[in-house]
Formats: sequence, structure tokens, C-alpha cells
Amino acid sequence: MSLAAQFQQTRQFSESLCSPLSVEDYNTQVIDYASPPKWHLAHTTWFFEEMILKKYADTYREFDPQFGFLFNSYYNHVGERLARGARGDISVPRVDKVLAYRQYINEHMLTLLENDPPVEALSLATLGINHEQQHQELFLTDLKYALGRNPLYPPYGQGTNLVNDTNTSHGTVNMDEGLYKIGHQGDSFHFDNETQVHKVYLNAYSIDKALVTNGEYIEFMDAGGYDTFHYWLDDGWHYLKDNDINAPLYWQKIDGRWHYYTLAGLEPVNPDALLSHVSYYEANAFASWKGRRLPTEFEWEAASDQLDWGKRWEWTNSAYLPYPGFTISKDAVGEYNGKFMINQMVLRGASVATPENHSRKTYRNFFHPHLQWQFSGIRLAA
Amino acid sequence: MSLAAQFQQTRQFSESLCSPLSVEDYNTQVIDYASPPKWHLAHTTWFFEEMILKKYADTYREFDPQFGFLFNSYYNHVGERLARGARGDISVPRVDKVLAYRQYINEHMLTLLENDPPVEALSLATLGINHEQQHQELFLTDLKYALGRNPLYPPYGQGTNLVNDTNTSHGTVNMDEGLYKIGHQGDSFHFDNETQVHKVYLNAYSIDKALVTNGEYIEFMDAGGYDTFHYWLDDGWHYLKDNDINAPLYWQKIDGRWHYYTLAGLEPVNPDALLSHVSYYEANAFASWKGRRLPTEFEWEAASDQLDWGKRWEWTNSAYLPYPGFTISKDAVGEYNGKFMINQMVLRGASVATPENHSRKTYRNFFHPHLQWQFSGIRLAA
Amino acid sequence: MSLAAQFQQTRQFSESLCSPLSVEDYNTQVIDYASPPKWHLAHTTWFFEEMILKKYADTYREFDPQFGFLFNSYYNHVGERLARGARGDISVPRVDKVLAYRQYINEHMLTLLENDPPVEALSLATLGINHEQQHQELFLTDLKYALGRNPLYPPYGQGTNLVNDTNTSHGTVNMDEGLYKIGHQGDSFHFDNETQVHKVYLNAYSIDKALVTNGEYIEFMDAGGYDTFHYWLDDGWHYLKDNDINAPLYWQKIDGRWHYYTLAGLEPVNPDALLSHVSYYEANAFASWKGRRLPTEFEWEAASDQLDWGKRWEWTNSAYLPYPGFTISKDAVGEYNGKFMINQMVLRGASVATPENHSRKTYRNFFHPHLQWQFSGIRLAA
Amino acid sequence: MSLAAQFQQTRQFSESLCSPLSVEDYNTQVIDYASPPKWHLAHTTWFFEEMILKKYADTYREFDPQFGFLFNSYYNHVGERLARGARGDISVPRVDKVLAYRQYINEHMLTLLENDPPVEALSLATLGINHEQQHQELFLTDLKYALGRNPLYPPYGQGTNLVNDTNTSHGTVNMDEGLYKIGHQGDSFHFDNETQVHKVYLNAYSIDKALVTNGEYIEFMDAGGYDTFHYWLDDGWHYLKDNDINAPLYWQKIDGRWHYYTLAGLEPVNPDALLSHVSYYEANAFASWKGRRLPTEFEWEAASDQLDWGKRWEWTNSAYLPYPGFTISKDAVGEYNGKFMINQMVLRGASVATPENHSRKTYRNFFHPHLQWQFSGIRLAA
Repeated sequence: MSLAAQFQQTRQFSESLCSPLSVEDYNTQVIDYASPPKWHLAHTTWFFEEMILKKYADTYREFDPQFGFLFNSYYNHVGERLARGARGDISVPRVDKVLAYRQYINEHMLTLLENDPPVEALSLATLGINHEQQHQELFLTDLKYALGRNPLYPPYGQGTNLVNDTNTSHGTVNMDEGLYKIGHQGDSFHFDNETQVHKVYLNAYSIDKALVTNGEYIEFMDAGGYDTFHYWLDDGWHYLKDNDINAPLYWQKIDGRWHYYTLAGLEPVNPDALLSHVSYYEANAFASWKGRRLPTEFEWEAASDQLDWGKRWEWTNSAYLPYPGFTISKDAVGEYNGKFMINQMVLRGASVATPENHSRKTYRNFFHPHLQWQFSGIRLAA
Repeated sequence: MSLAAQFQQTRQFSESLCSPLSVEDYNTQVIDYASPPKWHLAHTTWFFEEMILKKYADTYREFDPQFGFLFNSYYNHVGERLARGARGDISVPRVDKVLAYRQYINEHMLTLLENDPPVEALSLATLGINHEQQHQELFLTDLKYALGRNPLYPPYGQGTNLVNDTNTSHGTVNMDEGLYKIGHQGDSFHFDNETQVHKVYLNAYSIDKALVTNGEYIEFMDAGGYDTFHYWLDDGWHYLKDNDINAPLYWQKIDGRWHYYTLAGLEPVNPDALLSHVSYYEANAFASWKGRRLPTEFEWEAASDQLDWGKRWEWTNSAYLPYPGFTISKDAVGEYNGKFMINQMVLRGASVATPENHSRKTYRNFFHPHLQWQFSGIRLAA
Repeated sequence: MSLAAQFQQTRQFSESLCSPLSVEDYNTQVIDYASPPKWHLAHTTWFFEEMILKKYADTYREFDPQFGFLFNSYYNHVGERLARGARGDISVPRVDKVLAYRQYINEHMLTLLENDPPVEALSLATLGINHEQQHQELFLTDLKYALGRNPLYPPYGQGTNLVNDTNTSHGTVNMDEGLYKIGHQGDSFHFDNETQVHKVYLNAYSIDKALVTNGEYIEFMDAGGYDTFHYWLDDGWHYLKDNDINAPLYWQKIDGRWHYYTLAGLEPVNPDALLSHVSYYEANAFASWKGRRLPTEFEWEAASDQLDWGKRWEWTNSAYLPYPGFTISKDAVGEYNGKFMINQMVLRGASVATPENHSRKTYRNFFHPHLQWQFSGIRLAA
Repeated sequence: MSLAAQFQQTRQFSESLCSPLSVEDYNTQVIDYASPPKWHLAHTTWFFEEMILKKYADTYREFDPQFGFLFNSYYNHVGERLARGARGDISVPRVDKVLAYRQYINEHMLTLLENDPPVEALSLATLGINHEQQHQELFLTDLKYALGRNPLYPPYGQGTNLVNDTNTSHGTVNMDEGLYKIGHQGDSFHFDNETQVHKVYLNAYSIDKALVTNGEYIEFMDAGGYDTFHYWLDDGWHYLKDNDINAPLYWQKIDGRWHYYTLAGLEPVNPDALLSHVSYYEANAFASWKGRRLPTEFEWEAASDQLDWGKRWEWTNSAYLPYPGFTISKDAVGEYNGKFMINQMVLRGASVATPENHSRKTYRNFFHPHLQWQFSGIRLAA
């Protein structure tokens, strides 16, 4: 598919995600890290405008000079920006205007892409497409978080609850001790944090083919998992107690039975489905209770060809740190990944909310260990 | 005017306040004490349903059993409720549904009012009308707060900035020492906190006919008012420093000149207009700088017939405490006023945002001394 | 007694309060508003140095130029100072040095007092003596707070628990409607907040001769007082819930029986003794449960000649506000009282911790309504 | 040296560290993670009592049953404990009693050690000695923190400032690509987090022989290092701005020249001395400014035989995570290390405050990346 076609397809998919929304839904933000739909729509658009059109489209005229302030996310290079927690506070610009902004940028981008732009522009356009795909996933996780806090538990309305997948394979993969090559090889798109192919020496290990299910996790809960400190990391234990956490996100007991909010509304927990919405702390504690452990990101990648993955982001026991030889580039795009390499844990795989064509075995996702709002699950190793 | 007609007029006026709004505006809440428009529309409606229809309309069927939870404000008697800061988080129910709720309640209320209801129901209906009028004022102050935090400074669109009034009279009123009767007399509507007519002995005093203007306040600012601790109460001084306050709410200096956000957009400060959006701390400090003082609520009431008032809520130097003989009734309506009689200061008069027919000289408004978001101003005494 | 003798007696009494202390006790501070013994000893001394010796003792040489920073409490006029919560953080200067500081100032003050100083110096010396008496009471309340947080509940060691007094009179005083003169009359020492004798009109009222006992308060607790919102002011109710308060300060249930920490150690609550260590919120809620109310400070003062008072500071239903005609003087001493006239409630009487010669019927004590750490109790009116 | 002799020597050294202290110093705690001297003295003693004497000394009688509550640090297995931030609040037990406690435990421990105890007891005694050595270092870092917050900047009084060391070697060590063995080998004492010898594959790298000096760090500061976001990790940048950090801990500019608080008092910064008291964030930003990077803990260990180390804890670019095969034991001692393996970065080496015989090249120290209070410095790699 041509880059222009990829661009169009990606842009349209973002808008199709909005089709079940009413205007009221576009601004709702209930926690600072989960942005409202309107902001996602505008921010992904701003990325193309700021990084590409302003530099490579000669006669380009900015859509609105204030949008840079409103829709920049964290690019210090580019200047000041709205506080992250205030993204839901701006009823103006209206949804219509944001959609017009998208349309305006789309037209200019397509003109640029069809007129033989410099290779840097093409490369940035590919980055912009992947950036928008990341926000498509965040769109769903953030929207779920906002709707899930509403006492009415309104469904999103796409007809799917997104948490019903089950395991298709079982048993373990046994991997030999030895040197493995880690990191992205070849020319296809990838982020800077995956580059720098390098060797890692691994001891022999085994890794499960199946992910942990809701039913298995309920056993942990029934065994007093949330009340037994010695399964937990110290920071995790304090986080539980300070925040009254005693179940995965969205779970609540109604008349003695576990229910969870899903994008299709409130439902009884399906014990056979893959566990979702657990933090690293919970993943680690569950593994500890089982007498198992989480795989490292290297173990995961080395075994990935033999695993069925892609339904849940899988917490690994690796901290998000640079690969050998990684350096942060000095421009705005250099802020994309490197500056987050502290205090976060790597997740591998992909989730049901990840867009097609946006997953690969070398992909390094990362979140702070207390966060539950992703479609995150557990694969065990030993 | 009949009570039914008053009811209809009040209900329609609430909706007319919404006419300039887009759907995006109905949910925006940027601080816990300033509720979004949709919530005001629904909460005032819930008051009629909960306090009147459920009790006095025999065959009445509740519109939606979850609305009690969503739209109760602070009535502990009535049960649990949504956290105050989460009122902007509920994109569902939609605006349409809330308007349908209003329509449904209106019809049932009119039926009730036209069919000879018990006197308690009439009395509660009058209270409900006054309650809705209070929320009409909060609608405007809260909406201004939300729009004023938007970096685009969008106008509300009614064509008026609501802060342009000037003084129509000048000089002072001199009042004699002696006993004055304070509190509401007669049968017309009033709140329980105004009852209990009682005598107060006042020393001779004088009170200004004019309110403080923006220009006068700028003199205070130019004289270093915000940097001179001895004009300030100790709690006020700490509040200033902890919150970086150095001007009335909505003011900012652009190119060396003071501007303020108004409901008509960002405008240069009009020096002749009446000062607005100051806290009690600021009012008290200004008076101290002037070598004057604020009047007590009793001084204000005793002199009120000779004053031109109604453009700004006027901070007094009286704490909000019960009048002699005041008692809190035991039912839900008893939570209306009495339980707030601590830590708040009395404001007298009314503001440009106060609905017609909702002001009287015995009216006791009250807010915590640090709050600036009301249309609050200063009248000096000595 | 001569002023010099009064000075000496007051200074010695402060030191006698320290006689049961070990060096470890001098620095302990567990909350920002309760200062450690060493700080009280030094701060009261600094007052004499800063306000009197530096101005009126010609050849006076400052004891240590850094003490002004360390031992100033809140006098902005005098300059920067140590943060209030850090008073327990300074192991240096040592206790010995602080006692030497006291000795040095005592000598210079006595020399000054014996050599015919200007009348302003005499007046300030009297103020300094009264200031030190206030800190003698704070010394005990603050020390109790620090020791009471120690899981070992160590006794202070003076042999008295200070909470064992009982009522000596019962019944009520009935007061007539009419005008009463309020405020300090005559030349004897008093604070600026008591001056400005003025008339207050009071309705007829009755006021109890006895204070509320622990036993009566336990009845309130047993009746579910702390779980019944409608007895409480709204701010008070939130304060209870946010801070898990369900008893007076220092109370805990051991094996089904109430105990309290006292300055003689942990003891069973004496049901006949006068209730102590309640906040205004608790006092107000108790009165509400009883169907009574707290007296205003004016009612208290008007009836005071017929009451037995002096064992507990008694919360009144009056906010701490200026008397008519009160103005704040412009010098450092002007910061003594006036700047606190907001957000606090008046207490009348005196407590078992108040030094002799430091109480009078016009004395206006004041604290924020949530504070429990004073020897504060309840007298009811109707 | 016999274990009994090691025990005695270690115990005596702790007390010798207290010799310059006045009684006032024993309780001072100014931040929750820096404990007061008395607590360190008692807690290390409690470890021997709780882990050894209660289990292995048959007729042992507990010194004081409340000390378990007061002096347990974080061993959930052992039960409830005093809040960490309240360790400075307990003026009782007195210093004398804590010294008596030490004496009592010493006698019982020596009796036990001299009477052929089971091997588990010997192993725990060795752990207890190493534990006390860790607290000897914390004693100094915590005491420096407390004294350094005193505006008088009192010296500790041992005659040394502990920050005056300079580099003795220069240049770089070049290391070849290949497999290296990591982890403790042999029988000598080591912690559980160092065991599990395993192979790590390293790319070729170079590592500096010298540590960064104050002078070099001042160059970074003069080049605007603290104001240039792109040198910083995102969490670090926010931490700087939220906490107004613009220099290493204890540094302040006086009359245009950098000074620092040292254990010998306030001194001008020595530009040739090794930098100390920087966080991981600062270490990482400095490396980024230099166009270099921090070594990983594996690179550090592999090269350690060729480095001069032991003056500063050296931040590495490795997160504190388990070595392959590490498991947490189920008893109280199992809480020693494993439960902290999240959100912390590894430091290697040792510092001037580390006791003799308490360092080795496989030692893994760890702290949260924002902390500055250790004697922590920077070694660069590439």
C-alpha cells in the first residue's frame, strides 16, 4: 500500500472509532493520564502539522496558531503546552472545528505525499502514522476509563466488550541457554528504542503458551492474594493500601459475584477469558503466589515465534532502559522515547485494542508499574 | 403571579440561559465547587422530584432511579451521591435526556400545582423556585469559571460582559447609634437563616453609597498591596502566597495593561466599572489599606434602604452564624442553610448575575473567605 | 508586686515547668502547631530582646544574631523566620545555650526595669510577661500532644493528670433580655482585642453553671453521635470523616473501656470529670444532640460573674472578629491579635493549664474550629 | 577474627559514631527516610534480639516487649511497627535506656556466640553484623541530612568533612566484547541479591578511571544544565521543577560562590574533590550533557578490578531487578532485599561513609532515582 493510502486509512480509522460517540463524550477526562477523544483527534493531527507540514510544505499556512499550545503533548522542543490534566477542560474548539482541522491537514498532507517530498518528510509521515495508531489504542483505553467511572456504566457501543478472548494454545515452550539476538532487524518501520540489535545471554527457561485467565486470577484473590504482603513488592503493597485496590481495574463484586465494566457495559466476569487491566504489581504478585515469575523482555522476544500473542500487553520483568548504543536524537522527534527510560516496566506483545499493522515481536511498550488502565495481562515463565 | 406561572417562568429562564451553549459546554467542570451546566439543569429538577413529587403526587413514577444518586448535591438525608468534583465526568445521561427530565418534571409539577396540593407542597414549590434561582446565578458564575480557564477565552455569547456597571450614587450615609431590628419580617418568601427578627445595638457609623471601582483597586495594587503583609489577615496572606494570587480572579496583565476575562471574552479592565471577583481576604486588605473597614451585615441591613445595591455581592465583616433562636429543622430541607454556619463570611446585596425577584435586604449569602469566583465586590464603612 | 518581681516570677515559672524533662524532651515536635519546649523557652525570651532590649537598653548587645531567625514566631515586621513545622528540627542550639540566653536576657531586663525605663518599655514588659504566660499554657498543651503520640505514653511527671476536675455548681443562670456592656474596662492589663467597650443587645437566655462531663459525652458517643451527620456542621462532618475522628483527642478504647492519655500517663476516663480536648465541631454537635446550643461570647461575658469558670477553655458560638472601633496598630506588636481575626472561634474562660493571674472575664482566646489539643470543654446555653 | 570479635567490634563502632553527639542530637528526624541516631542504635540491636536471641537463646527474656513495635523497620513478618516518619517523635525511651538495651543484647549475644550455637544462628549473626554496618553508613548520611537542615550548620565534630577525596587515577579502561560472569562467587559473606552467578554478554565499552569532580559538575551547571530539558529524563525534569532543585544536595551559592554543608560545617565547594550527593536524575543528565553515559552494573562489575573505587556510591544505568534464578525466601529475612526490586536504580562501589569490610565488587546498593542524600557520585562510560 502506498504511504498516501496508509495515511488515509489510518486517518479514517481514527474517525471511525468516534462513530458511536455523542458530542458529550468528546471532552470527558477523569484522570490526567487518560485524554479525551477530542484531544486525541487533534493531537495526532497537530503532529503532522508541526513535524511535517510546517517544515516541508512550502506554502503551508497554519490552521490555527493556538492549536500548537492546545494539542502539543510533551514535546518541550516545540514549546509550552496545556497542562495534561486540563485536556478535558476546553469545550472550545468545538468537535466540528477539530474535524475541520483534520480535514485541512489531510488535504495538505496528501498533496505533500503525492508531490515527491524529501525522504525525511516520508520518514516522518510514517512516524506520524504509527503515532496515530498508538493514539487509536489510547483512545479506547482512555475512553473506557472515562465511561467506566460513570455510575451508569454506559456502553461504548461498538458491540464488543474487548475482553472476551480465550487462550488458543497451552503448555510451555522450553528455551535453551545461550546467546540470542535482540532488537529490530531490517528496514521496516520500527521505533528508535528497538534498534541496536545486540546479543543477550539467557539461561535455559520455559515460558507459558497461554496467558493467565480471569478464573486463575480469581483463585489468587480467593486465596487472600491482596491481603498477603509477602507476595508483593514493597512499593506495590503500599500502593494497594494507599489506594484501596483489591481487584483488577473495573472489577466489582455484585451480590457475591465478580463483574467488570467493559466497553459493552457492565458484565459478569468471564472466568475463561484472558485477564486484563492488571498492574505490574499485580502481575508480579500473582506470579509470586504461583511460585513462578514474569519473563524478561529478552526471554519474551527470543521465544516469541513460538507463542500466540497479541491479545494483551504482557508485563515483563524488565525495566525500560536503553539498548546498548542507543542515543537520543537532538530534535523534537528525539523526545519520542528516550526520555521515558526510567521508572517504567516493559510490556511486550500487543492488545485487542492495538490497531492492525502496529505490532511486532521487537516492539517495546512501557508503563509505570502501578497503572492498570491498559489491556494488560500476564504470561508466566520459570 | 400564580405559583404555577412563577414555576414555569423560572424553569424557562434556566433553559434560556443555555441557549448560547453548544453541547460541548454542558459538561465542563474545572474545579470541584463550580458545577457544569448539565448538572445545574438536572439538580434543580431533582429537587422538585425528590422533595415534592415523590411525596405529594400520588401516582408519580420516578423518571430514572439513578438520577437521585447523580443529581443530589449535599442532602445527606436523601442518601449517597456522586462526588462533587465528578459532576463533569458523566457524559451520560446526554443533554437531551436531561432536557426530557426537565420536561417530565415540569408536567408533573404543573399538574400537581393546578390540583390543589397540600400547603406543604406549595411551600416546598416556592422553595424549589428560589433554589433554582440560586442555581441560575451559580450557572453563570460556574460557567464563567470554566470558560475563563480556556486559553482561547471563548465568550458565553449573551452579548454582555456583566462587569461593566458603574456607581450611580456617591458620598456616605451616616447612621446613628442605637438599636436596630434585623431579620425578615412579614410573610413573603425568605430562607430560614433570615428569620428570627432580633435587635442589634450599633454604634454610630458611616457607610459608602458607592462600591469600590476597578480603578481604585488598581491604585491598591500599584501601591504594592499584594506584597505588603500588614494589610492582610494572616490566613489570607498565606493563601495569597501559597496560590500565587496577585490580582482579582480573571485579571492578567498584557503588555503592561490589565485585562480580564468576561462573559463577552477577554477585555481591557474598565477602571470606572465596579470591582468584581475579589475574595474576602482581598476586600479586607483593600479596606485596611484605605484606613477603612467593611461593614458588618447588621450595619449593611440597617442602612440598606439608603444604599443603591444589587450589582455585586458585598463582603461584610460578619461571620455566617445563626440568628438568636435559630434551629435546624430535622428533615432534608433542614440541611439547606444551618449546617454551613461555620468558616464562612456573610455577603449582602445581590449581583448582576442574581435573577430578578431573588434579592431582598435581609438576604444572607455566604462563602468561604478565600473564594473569588462570585461577582463579589467591596463597599466600605467607617 | 513590682513589675520586676512579676518578671522574675514569670521567668522562673517557665523554667520550673521544665524540671521534669530530660534533654530528649526539649526538641520533640510532632505537628506544626505544637512547638517543642526549647522553642517556647527561647521564643518568649526573644520577645523581650527584640521588642524591648534592642530598643530601650542603650548599650545592649545581642546575645546571638541568628536567634532572631530561629525564635521569631510570626512577626512579619521583624523579618524572616524558621518554618513553624521545623522548630523541632534544630538540635543546636543546645538546651544549655538556651538557658544561658534566658539568663542573659533576664539580667538585662532587670537592669532595664530597675533603671526607670520609658513608659513604652514598661508597657511592653507587661505585654512580654503576659506573652510568656500564654506560652506557659502552650508549653503544657504542646508537650502533652508530643508525649501523647508516643506509644509508651510516658507521664510528664508533675504528679497531676490535669483532667480530673469536677463541677462544683449546677443548675442554670437565667439572664434578662437587654443591653449589656462588653469589653475590658479599667487600666489593668488586657489585650487590644478586649478593648473598645461597647453595648450588645441580648435576648433572654439561660446558661448552665456546670460544664459537660466525660460521662455525658460518652452518652453522646454511645448514642451514635459521631455517625449521625445531622448533629454536625458540614465542615465538621467532612473533617471527622477525612481524619477518622471518633472521640476526643487522646481517647482510645481498651478492652471495651475508654481510656485517655493524661500528663500522668494513660488512665481510664473519669466519667465525673470535666470533658476536655474537644473541637468546636464536637462541642457544637454535642449541643445539637442535646437540643441545646453554645453561648455566644457576649452571653458568656454578661453571665460570667455568676458562673464558676477557669477549668476548661469554653468554646462559644462567636467567630473571632474585631470589636467596634478596633484597629490594628502598625508596629510589630500590632501583629499580636488583629491579623488572626478570621476563620477562628472564640473561647472564653481559662483552663487548668492557664497560669495564675492570666485570666479575666473579658479575655478572648481563639482557635480554628477543628483543633482539639487545648484543654477545651463545653458549657451549654439555651 | 572470630565472629564474636567481629560482633564486638561492629557494636563498638556504632557507639563510637555517637561520641560527638549531645543528647539533643539523638532524636532529630527531618524527613521520613532519614532516621535519627537513637533509632539506628536501637533498631540494629532489635535485629539481633528478634532474629537470633528469641529463637536460639533458650532462656532469653525480652528486654522490653514494646521495643519490637518501636524499632522494627519494615519486616511485615514480624508485625506492626511505628510509622517511619515518627521515629524522631519518641523522646522516650531515653538514650540511656537504649544504650542499656545495647549492652543487654551484647551480653546475651556474646554468651550465645561463645556456646556453640546452631549454624543458622551464626549465619544470622553475620547477617546482623552486616546489617549494622549498613546502618552505620545510614547513621552518617541521615545525621548529615538533619544537621544540614539546621540554619546554624553545626558540624558533626569528627574533624572530617567526608567530601574532600580526589581522584588518584585517570584515563579509561577499555573492555572487550564478550561474555562475563556476574555475581558473587565463593563462601564469604554476601547478600542474597548478589548470588546466582550468571553470564552477561557485553558489547565492547570503555569506562573512566576517575569519578566526576565538583569542578566538572560546576561546568555543567554554568552551561545551564538545570535549565535545559533535553539533558533530562522526563520524570527527572518534573522532579527538578516540582522541588526547585538546581544543585546537588547541601549546595548553596553565597556571594556568588558555591558552598556546601559538610559534616565539618559549611565550606566553600572544593572543585577538585569528587562530586557527591547527586541523584540518578542528575547523574544521567550530566552524562547526557557530556555526550557520555553511565555504565550498567554489569559493565561496572566486569571492569571493577581495574578501577579505583570506594569513595562514592556510583549510580549505574541498571534497574534493581533479580538475577536469573533469584527467589525470595519465605521468612522474615526474606524481606531483606527482594521486595525492593522495583523503581530503584543500582549503585555500585562504596562511599567514604561505608564501614571497612563492608564493600565488595559484587555488592548491589539501590535507591530511588530522585534521592540525593547518599554520598553518591558519577563515573562515566561510553
